[in-house]
Order: sequence, then structure tokens, then C-alpha cells
Amino acid sequence: MRDLKRVSVLKIDEKQTQGIDDEIVIEEPLEVRVNGDSLSVTMRTPGNDFDLAVGLLWTEGIIQSREEIGTIAYCPDEEQPELKNIVNVTLVEAARRIESSRRLWSNSSCGLCGKATLDAIRQTCRPIASRIVVSSELIFSLPGRLREAQANFERTGGIHAVGLFDVQGSLLVLREDIGRHNAVDKVLGAALLGGLSFVDSVLMVSGRLGFEIAQKALVAGIPVVASISAASSLAIELATDFGMTTIGFLRGRSMNVYSHAARINAG
Amino acid sequence: MRDLKRVSVLKIDEKQTQGIDDEIVIEEPLEVRVNGDSLSVTMRTPGNDFDLAVGLLWTEGIIQSREEIGTIAYCPDEEQPELKNIVNVTLVEAARRIESSRRLWSNSSCGLCGKATLDAIRQTCRPIASRIVVSSELIFSLPGRLREAQANFERTGGIHAVGLFDVQGSLLVLREDIGRHNAVDKVLGAALLGGLSFVDSVLMVSGRLGFEIAQKALVAGIPVVASISAASSLAIELATDFGMTTIGFLRGRSMNVYSHAARINAG
Repeated sequence: MRDLKRVSVLKIDEKQTQGIDDEIVIEEPLEVRVNGDSLSVTMRTPGNDFDLAVGLLWTEGIIQSREEIGTIAYCPDEEQPELKNIVNVTLVEAARRIESSRRLWSNSSCGLCGKATLDAIRQTCRPIASRIVVSSELIFSLPGRLREAQANFERTGGIHAVGLFDVQGSLLVLREDIGRHNAVDKVLGAALLGGLSFVDSVLMVSGRLGFEIAQKALVAGIPVVASISAASSLAIELATDFGMTTIGFLRGRSMNVYSHAARINAG
Repeated sequence: MRDLKRVSVLKIDEKQTQGIDDEIVIEEPLEVRVNGDSLSVTMRTPGNDFDLAVGLLWTEGIIQSREEIGTIAYCPDEEQPELKNIVNVTLVEAARRIESSRRLWSNSSCGLCGKATLDAIRQTCRPIASRIVVSSELIFSLPGRLREAQANFERTGGIHAVGLFDVQGSLLVLREDIGRHNAVDKVLGAALLGGLSFVDSVLMVSGRLGFEIAQKALVAGIPVVASISAASSLAIELATDFGMTTIGFLRGRSMNVYSHAARINAG
């Protein structure tokens, strides 16, 4: 994964000023194409780009299953052929064109792409029926498990991590990105490509739980989403209406459950 | 500002499980229209919406000065007239239509909107010539000044703050939003509408310093941008090429200067 880069930095503190070598997170644009047509450009950390492209297509409602995917490949950039910053996904239905209305709002791997209103988004969501119950002990353990599994977050402090866990707390997929939405799309794309089941899974995100994150998890049918940070009003409303458990401020041995708390066993 | 909402939350910790009232950050979609045509939808925290709309138009290159703005007004939503979630900006050049290519990538108040490549963005940027020098003492004081000035961040932990300071450390404009890009656009829009000069200003952001943040600051001609968090590779490259000072990991009495350190006087 081409995710970190060494640069010269002037470090200033109260005692001294010194030039040091430091690592920074790489951010580059990724253009996603569907059957050769440009769908969106997102600023992402390079790596797991096929997962990101597939996750984006899925959470945008362009595909519903991995069977719809034909091939996934990097396209050479005419001007900078050494850069792998364009991914083309051909669909089995190879003649399909993404209508331009869908492309209109597309950016930053955002869940609003192409739908003019929240109502339209809601019409594409299905309620989550999963009856899993997860112990609060297991939920408390997730931030630590996520941190253990990822090397970069602690090094640079600038990268988001998202993990998909099963109800025993085993990590199924971990992905990182400078963008929260991208990290979620990478996880969902990897899990879809890997044929994983989401019915009894828990999604743990290192950033805020905003509307787009909740919407993406809902598309995947994930019953429990937890964040170490805050959840937004719109995320909680969406989760409440569609049967998804949302957890915020998961820090140390404390958490706030905002919706469908019946899935959490505090015993 | 309609930014917080009280909700019932189940708080679980190792000692007890209890229902409490808690405050969450409000997130709602804002549609920005130019001369009646839809430009973008962004998920934002309601409040200072006119600043956000103007900042977005500016950083997207649709306007270059406040003199181009005719009127700014909320449009009634046909279905939910009580919601103020659509802002229309009429330009003095009232017949102007935003070409659809510019609308294509528009979302999340992102600096990439409507430009197909980074090169195209760079062609719209002008080098920063400001010769200001800022003491490291003053830079160290900015996070504290920003926190003092904002009430919400400590309460909910879920909202980003951005402040524009002068070189004496006086706060010129503070804006908050659930989205980092929105908070920057709100600050820039407010400052543009207020006729402020950016030549000797410092922008302090509570989130990461990614490419879009650097690009927005560059459009405004801000010479110094500081973040308490990490800066990305692309942000640093853009800042290096166009003469902007970037600072990351501004915490306590320490900071990393990534570009154009001559503006920082560590003495």
C-alpha cells in the first residue's frame, strides 16, 4: 500500500527548532469509471483501489451484487502512465450507461451521489431484520482491536480506519484511508468481493458517524455500527427508521447507544 | 444557530446502563443554487448558510469577488416549507448559467468540483506573495483561542471549527460545521461578504489539512494554514508550489511546519 511518504519537516517546539524527517499520509485523486464512463473522482489514500471502486458502486446503488461485476482494471493515465489513479469497472451488462443524473452529485465517496433528496435515498434502503445480540464487553473491545490491527494510524495520526467484525469480535476486513467515506467503501467493497455475509457483523469506524456512513452501512445490511466519535442527527434518524443499531463515543469502557439498543446486551 | 438537538440515549458503561438526555450535532442537506440552477448538495450543520453558499461559489471559482453577488435568499422547499435547506444566490450577471461540466463533481463542499484534473485546479491558483512573519508563540496560542471562542466542540465532540485570525492573534471569523470543508467555506464566505483582507491572516482548522482545505485557503490568498491534525501529501505539494505556509500537529507547544517555514519566527 502506497500510503505514507517521507518528507522534510521543520519541527518547532518551545525548546528548539530542528529539521526532521517525518511521514505524511499520501492523498491522490482516484477516478472511477463504469464501462468506460467517468463516474466520480475522489481524493483517497492509494491502495485497495478496486475495493474502493466496488464499494462506491455498491453504496451508490449502481450494482446490487458482485455478480454484476465483469472486470476491474487500472486505466493508464495518458499524461502520467506511472500513476494508478484511474480504475475502470466493466459490468456484466457491458453496454449499460450510468445516467448523468446519477453522476451529478458524485464526489468524496459520498452517499448522496445522484439522488436529489433524502427521500429518494430512503426509498433505496431496506430495513435490517438481523436479530443478533452483541455483548457490551465485545463492543468495548473493538477500538483496541481496530488499533492493534492497523499500523498507520498511530504513526501519522492522519488516517481513518474502518473494521468489519463478526459477533465474536474477530476482524473480517480492515481498511484505511485519509477519507472516512473511502475507508468504509473499501471495507464494503472488499467484503462484497470476498463474498462475506453482513447479517451478523459489526462495523467500527474511527471517525464520526454521519449520514453517509450510516447510509453506506445500511446498503450493506450491517446491523450494528459503532464510532469512537459523535453520531449526527440524520444518521441516527436513518438508523432508527431502518432498524440499525448506532453507537457513538465508544471510548474506554463507555458508549452511547442512539438507536435499536436491544441488540446490545449490557449484562 | 440550529446546531444541536437533544435526544434520548442509552449510556452503557462498566458500572451501569441508564437512559440519559444527550446533545447531538444536527446534520441536514443544503442545496445551493446559482441563478436558480442547482449547483450542489452538501450535508451540513444548519446555520450561516449564506456564508457557506458564498464560500462554496468562491472556492469553486464561480465568483471571484463579492461584487458579483446580487441577492442571497432561502428558497421554500415545496414539500417541507418549514425547512431552510435551499439557498439561491443570484449573480449580478443574472442570466449566467453554470455549465454542467462544472456541476459534475460537486459535493461535500469539495475543492475538486467541476475540474477534471489537478492540473486544471492549479491553473486557477495564484501564488501567495504575502511577506508576513508570525511568531511561533502566536501559532502555539491558536488552538486555545479557537477552543475558547467556540462553545459547541467541547459539548458534543462532533463538530469541526475553523477560525481566521490576524497576525496579532485576534479572531476575525469563527465558523463550525459537522463537515471540515463546510466550516472552511463558511469562514471564507463570511470574510468575503464582510470585506476582510486575507493578506496577513492565519487560518486555523480543527481537522486534517487535506488537499481541498489547502486549495480553498489558496483561493482566498491566505498565507498561513495551521491544523491540530495531519497534513496530506497533496496539500503540502500544492502549498509548497504556491507559497503557502502549512503547519500540522499543532498541539501544546509543538508544531510541524511542512512548507514555507520562513513565515514562522521561532525566536
